[in-house]
Amino acid sequence: MSVTVFPLPQGFRAAGLHCGIKKDPQVFDLSLFVSDVPASAAGVFTTNLVHGAPVKVSRSRVPRATARGVVINSGNSNACTGERGFADAEWMTAEVARLLGCPAADMLVCSTGVIGRFLPKETLAAGFPRVVSALGASPAHLLDAARGIMTTDTVPKLSTRELQLGGRTVRLSGVCKGAAMIAPNMATMLGTILTDAVLTPSEADALLRHAVDRSFNCISVEGHMSTSDTVLLLANGRSGGAPANAAEWASLQQACDELAADLAQQIIRDAEGADHEIEIEVRGLPTRAEAFRIAKSIADSPLVKTAITGADPNWGRIVSAAGYAGVPLAEEQMTLWLNGLLLYRAGAPVAFDAKEVSQSIRNNRRVKIELELTLGGESVRFWTCDLTAEYVRLNADYTT
Amino acid sequence: MSVTVFPLPQGFRAAGLHCGIKKDPQVFDLSLFVSDVPASAAGVFTTNLVHGAPVKVSRSRVPRATARGVVINSGNSNACTGERGFADAEWMTAEVARLLGCPAADMLVCSTGVIGRFLPKETLAAGFPRVVSALGASPAHLLDAARGIMTTDTVPKLSTRELQLGGRTVRLSGVCKGAAMIAPNMATMLGTILTDAVLTPSEADALLRHAVDRSFNCISVEGHMSTSDTVLLLANGRSGGAPANAAEWASLQQACDELAADLAQQIIRDAEGADHEIEIEVRGLPTRAEAFRIAKSIADSPLVKTAITGADPNWGRIVSAAGYAGVPLAEEQMTLWLNGLLLYRAGAPVAFDAKEVSQSIRNNRRVKIELELTLGGESVRFWTCDLTAEYVRLNADYTT
Repeated sequence: MSVTVFPLPQGFRAAGLHCGIKKDPQVFDLSLFVSDVPASAAGVFTTNLVHGAPVKVSRSRVPRATARGVVINSGNSNACTGERGFADAEWMTAEVARLLGCPAADMLVCSTGVIGRFLPKETLAAGFPRVVSALGASPAHLLDAARGIMTTDTVPKLSTRELQLGGRTVRLSGVCKGAAMIAPNMATMLGTILTDAVLTPSEADALLRHAVDRSFNCISVEGHMSTSDTVLLLANGRSGGAPANAAEWASLQQACDELAADLAQQIIRDAEGADHEIEIEVRGLPTRAEAFRIAKSIADSPLVKTAITGADPNWGRIVSAAGYAGVPLAEEQMTLWLNGLLLYRAGAPVAFDAKEVSQSIRNNRRVKIELELTLGGESVRFWTCDLTAEYVRLNADYTT
Repeated sequence: MSVTVFPLPQGFRAAGLHCGIKKDPQVFDLSLFVSDVPASAAGVFTTNLVHGAPVKVSRSRVPRATARGVVINSGNSNACTGERGFADAEWMTAEVARLLGCPAADMLVCSTGVIGRFLPKETLAAGFPRVVSALGASPAHLLDAARGIMTTDTVPKLSTRELQLGGRTVRLSGVCKGAAMIAPNMATMLGTILTDAVLTPSEADALLRHAVDRSFNCISVEGHMSTSDTVLLLANGRSGGAPANAAEWASLQQACDELAADLAQQIIRDAEGADHEIEIEVRGLPTRAEAFRIAKSIADSPLVKTAITGADPNWGRIVSAAGYAGVPLAEEQMTLWLNGLLLYRAGAPVAFDAKEVSQSIRNNRRVKIELELTLGGESVRFWTCDLTAEYVRLNADYTT
């Protein structure tokens, strides 16, 4: 396991450890992120109407000006657990808040793991004082916290960015989890981003939504939406740096977008059973939403995915997936490249060297699909992976 | 190969043979269906904006009062072939119409097979007189025609129904093709239904649309929509039987619905690489469209499919797929059975014997998922299949 570790933004501490939800004592299952001072908090959540209790609790508490932290357990998603599950999620925040000396409502909560089982409260209750004691501000502490939220991930996922705002150095550090394919029951994705920039709750909210729309919302493994997906942002202002003008805001947004895209791509890279990471760029639409629908239609097609698995330059599968995306278009408006090689121009296949294209797919773990239309100036990038026999084996053999 | 053969309705003839589009001389690639008298014709076509030339031609000619037949070739879909492909599709109808002595516009056309290649016109031109000479009214002739439209299908697909209308015996006979999974480039489905009932073009159209909505539109293998899907209905009135009242119309509709559903299920049964056929029944919605969206969301989830492959009674994957179908609902409104065994009631999992459910999945090639909501009286049935490593192998290794 080779992972680059990153320092925390100022005024944050983190911890992760094994508290006993999972059997293996070497595997972490509880993480805590804490700001030493009240922080602006924002969140983006699954749109699935069936969603876990922690989503209900955290969603009701953001945006917020006085957040103090996030507690996350893995090994049990506390989803499909009804009123008792909701009370348990509230209890988690209250217990940790009590130990930190803050109101329960200033704590946010996420859970990930098997669904339909009640939380082991005694196990968690014994873990909370230990994880609070373990809090620290070193890169190793953030790494531990990244480990505590993992389910079937094979590597912890971290990213960081630094920039200057108002003459001060501001840092953003984030962690996420999601191995997508064989996640217990569903493909839950969780992310937490911490920054010491000075932001109001509504600024934090805008910053996060823009970044998530260009990262976590642009990845898919098999198109099955989780009940627990959550990305949270805490901004505690401890660097003293605030965006002083539109240019500085743009720099901050870019840093946050890049960090989130880096984390999202780490999820695709860790998608178990995948042989290829696929980047789909769709250009030339009147709106970003239309480009997104086409990219997602291509990304979710098992026929496109298996073509990449088989190194088959099958432009027909790609173009036809665009055709049923629900966006008005005509064949003559489409041109397609695979790994930079032109396959299809203005509605007709071109003469290309199929062996060369196959070789290019076979020799590169990363594959790029570019579809250009002639309908406007908006574009989108979307990341997915191929579909292998190993994926099926992992998901068919997974047992609750 | 065990296939039941059926007689043609009165006044129809059919034929199928090898004309040379495919290499193997044992494999048929050209079929013809002809009515001895002008027939009412209706058609339902792919909604993919990228669609083949034959779809454009046939769609422009129905509904129609004077149709004489359908010519279909396999081995080449004549899709993504631009203006030349359109001219070639028109040419096919003109050549066959000339041999039959009718206007070109009274012939309909379908093509299925690899895309992006121009039709081999000389091969077809040599085949047309032979297929016209081969026309006949016996069950063997209809079987030959069913064989001529096959691509990767392993069995020809036929179905028939008989009923009394206005004191006359009326017959409906249909054929279809579609092996969905490893169809060349895309999962094309074609169907042709012939009946000697007396119907106006608009009656034929209504009859066909109702049936297709409850059959071919309710199957999916991997959710990738073909560019060539077409179902045609010809009604030549030769039985003299017309629906005399609402009850007789209902009987006719039911017969046509059942025939189409039988054909559609034959496609699922022939889905290569599949270990299970899955019937999904969603009940209790305000509208059929909402029930349909939920059923399709469940059917298209690779996580649901692989759960069935692995005999895993994973109610969470099914319930969560309903949650992101875009239909307003709450967990408490859902109850779920798998092969008749209750797994989830009113928003919470029930205590069930997981081994018993697994055994039931493992021991039955047909699996039934029933999801009941409390929101209304409409329901839908949807058919799909599981997702196996063999599916991936077949689709990854397919080469154009």
